[in-house]
Amino acid sequence: ADGGVGAAAREPPEEAEDIYTIKNQSAVECFLPCSCHDLQESLLSSASGYNNYRGILNWCVVMLVSTICSLFLLLKLYWYGILVDPIQVVKLFLKDPYSWPAACLVIVSNVFILVALYTERRLAVVSTYYVPLFISMILLSVVLCPSFIALLYVCVCFTVGGVLSLGIYTVLFLKLYSYQDTNRWCREIRQAKAKRLTHMYYFVFAPTLCYQLNFPRSPRIRKSFLMRRLFEMLFFMQLLVGLIQQWMVPTIQNSMKPFQEMDFSRMVERLLKLAVPNHLIWLIFFYWFFHSSMNFVAELLQFGDREFYKDWWNSESVTYFWANWNIPVHKWCLRHFYKPMLRKGINKFLAQTAVFLVSAFFHEYLVSIPLKMFRLWAFMGMMAQVPLAWFVSRFLNGNYGNVAVWISLIIGQPVAVLMYVHDYYVTHHGGTT
Amino acid sequence: ADGGVGAAAREPPEEAEDIYTIKNQSAVECFLPCSCHDLQESLLSSASGYNNYRGILNWCVVMLVSTICSLFLLLKLYWYGILVDPIQVVKLFLKDPYSWPAACLVIVSNVFILVALYTERRLAVVSTYYVPLFISMILLSVVLCPSFIALLYVCVCFTVGGVLSLGIYTVLFLKLYSYQDTNRWCREIRQAKAKRLTHMYYFVFAPTLCYQLNFPRSPRIRKSFLMRRLFEMLFFMQLLVGLIQQWMVPTIQNSMKPFQEMDFSRMVERLLKLAVPNHLIWLIFFYWFFHSSMNFVAELLQFGDREFYKDWWNSESVTYFWANWNIPVHKWCLRHFYKPMLRKGINKFLAQTAVFLVSAFFHEYLVSIPLKMFRLWAFMGMMAQVPLAWFVSRFLNGNYGNVAVWISLIIGQPVAVLMYVHDYYVTHHGGTT
Repeated sequence: ADGGVGAAAREPPEEAEDIYTIKNQSAVECFLPCSCHDLQESLLSSASGYNNYRGILNWCVVMLVSTICSLFLLLKLYWYGILVDPIQVVKLFLKDPYSWPAACLVIVSNVFILVALYTERRLAVVSTYYVPLFISMILLSVVLCPSFIALLYVCVCFTVGGVLSLGIYTVLFLKLYSYQDTNRWCREIRQAKAKRLTHMYYFVFAPTLCYQLNFPRSPRIRKSFLMRRLFEMLFFMQLLVGLIQQWMVPTIQNSMKPFQEMDFSRMVERLLKLAVPNHLIWLIFFYWFFHSSMNFVAELLQFGDREFYKDWWNSESVTYFWANWNIPVHKWCLRHFYKPMLRKGINKFLAQTAVFLVSAFFHEYLVSIPLKMFRLWAFMGMMAQVPLAWFVSRFLNGNYGNVAVWISLIIGQPVAVLMYVHDYYVTHHGGTT
Repeated sequence: ADGGVGAAAREPPEEAEDIYTIKNQSAVECFLPCSCHDLQESLLSSASGYNNYRGILNWCVVMLVSTICSLFLLLKLYWYGILVDPIQVVKLFLKDPYSWPAACLVIVSNVFILVALYTERRLAVVSTYYVPLFISMILLSVVLCPSFIALLYVCVCFTVGGVLSLGIYTVLFLKLYSYQDTNRWCREIRQAKAKRLTHMYYFVFAPTLCYQLNFPRSPRIRKSFLMRRLFEMLFFMQLLVGLIQQWMVPTIQNSMKPFQEMDFSRMVERLLKLAVPNHLIWLIFFYWFFHSSMNFVAELLQFGDREFYKDWWNSESVTYFWANWNIPVHKWCLRHFYKPMLRKGINKFLAQTAVFLVSAFFHEYLVSIPLKMFRLWAFMGMMAQVPLAWFVSRFLNGNYGNVAVWISLIIGQPVAVLMYVHDYYVTHHGGTT
């Protein structure tokens, strides 16, 4: 009988339940759970190694939605009234309907695409010594042309349109660089085939920065998936515009006075108050851009590779975050910048710093030129990641590292935002108010 | 060469990186990544099957801490001033130092423990026909005695102390029931050995409701683990008291007027306003009680089984939530109530409803008697889980089910809280104000 009890004690309760259906009363020793405890850790203890928190993500969504709804409806409307104006963004983009600078810039970008395609077609047939020079000139002009236009164009309201069109040109630069680089590699291994115009435009619209001759294609367009992504795109777009106009802009405006007077304690208070909407907006932006929009475009083009981000939310070091939150850019940097440098014998740390340097340049480019202010805050913000990465990897790991990454995201961004807004405000409004 | 390119394309980038260290320039075809995309889904798409969101949990902690800090320091202090008074709770428990009803009740509970131990010792030697009757009387008196005292004791301020001492008696009732049940099973298989007094008290203090002859023991007391849990216990205790006094009580007081006037739209507004602090307090209470406190006690007693909760945050049905958020009670219900019923041939649905009925009784018992109000809101709240469970399992699954469980938690609790507070307020303050 003793042996029977021991066996019952070792059996998990789920199996024991099935045994109960046996109605044999003489076998009572086998299924009476005289022992029901096992040696085991709690799930939340790090020793348990458990990490399935899918439900927590849903909790965040529920709490975010309810918080935004209640804050939006109950509090903010009382304080500032309804400030949301969805048409304002369109207006900013299309300011002065007789010139439409941003829209014109976007249309002009087709010229660069066609020149790049034509160049590669010629190169497939003949190769001349001045080719690298010519290609460099095209790529350089992709970056410089819009910035000259943006700087020469005097209207102050070009800010939003400027960021959008410069962003499009930056993406185009990265795509064309990848295009010529990949084509050169292919020529080296005698696979030279400049594809037709539709293929070129497929690459331009595809949600990737890295060119390859044949992209993996998904078997069919899933209509329900497409519709859900489209709904998300439209909904989060409105939500973003609403949150920025209703929550972020008033908070920034309120924080101007303490910043002008350099009242330190109130500066910190305003910074923390700005950190919450800024972080929420950034998270919603991430989902909107990297999940909804990119998946929508990919589904429409039957583009198969949907890895637009990895699990950056688990990142325990700053390096891991930068390598996983924006996979298209990370892939480009790795393929066309970091690895070619390693192949030339440059050591890993230098190559990594160079990648951050280029990234810092483009961050600065996207902010400074539309605002017409060269303050280097964005540049320094990106370059500060190098010592921060060293610090976090040196002193913190596991969940502490993860918390450090989150805090740097939550605090770092509003600091940079406030710096620019403050300088912009001082420049344009002087010492008044 | 073509075959070489194909191979390179199929290789993951990590492996490719190692290949770059080979400085053989003639092997250039092998490692130029002419192809760099794979057919794959985004992580947040449900099709990817990915669910490691450990980082999101850390994000929640960071956001909770910062929100609580900023709300606490910046907003609430302006509105209500400092309302936190850590001594008030101690005062409530020890109100009227000449009688100390709650403390006396806890001390008296030892009598029941000793009687139960003595009874089992006698039963190990002789067995008589009136034993089941006697044991039932002891168990019944464990539940009834403190409730009589609580009802007869007229002081209104017995609320907090009453809930605590009735809670302790409820736990004791479940423990003693398990004790006699398990001992009876052991006698049936001739393992009858009533253990010594220290063993009995080990069981009384151990963080479990299910008795067994030999508990699994952890090999040693980890001092750093113990200290961290102790710090968490003290910190979250203070935080809970602070949040209740500073956030929950003012919100409840503000919601009395709309509830008395039955102003429906403002009632909903107040309910939603109460839902946030109530839910946060419940979450912190969960962590404080089921992780910090129980692990602290278990570490101190070298009690090996730390499974005090399972992954209820992922629960996609109401049944799963109730079966996983409070494992000690769930284990007790399964072992001493649900499975014995199944063994007697009662069908599963009836047995499950009976479990909810008993749970509803104890919820009502813990609220009604200290408040001296028999309104059955807690009872009905628990019984409402049966149709809710049916509804969720019938119409919702996956993440939708999970969201439904979260919403029922967030909304359900404050409804019950407001019901009781409203009735308590009307009873004690009449129609005034």
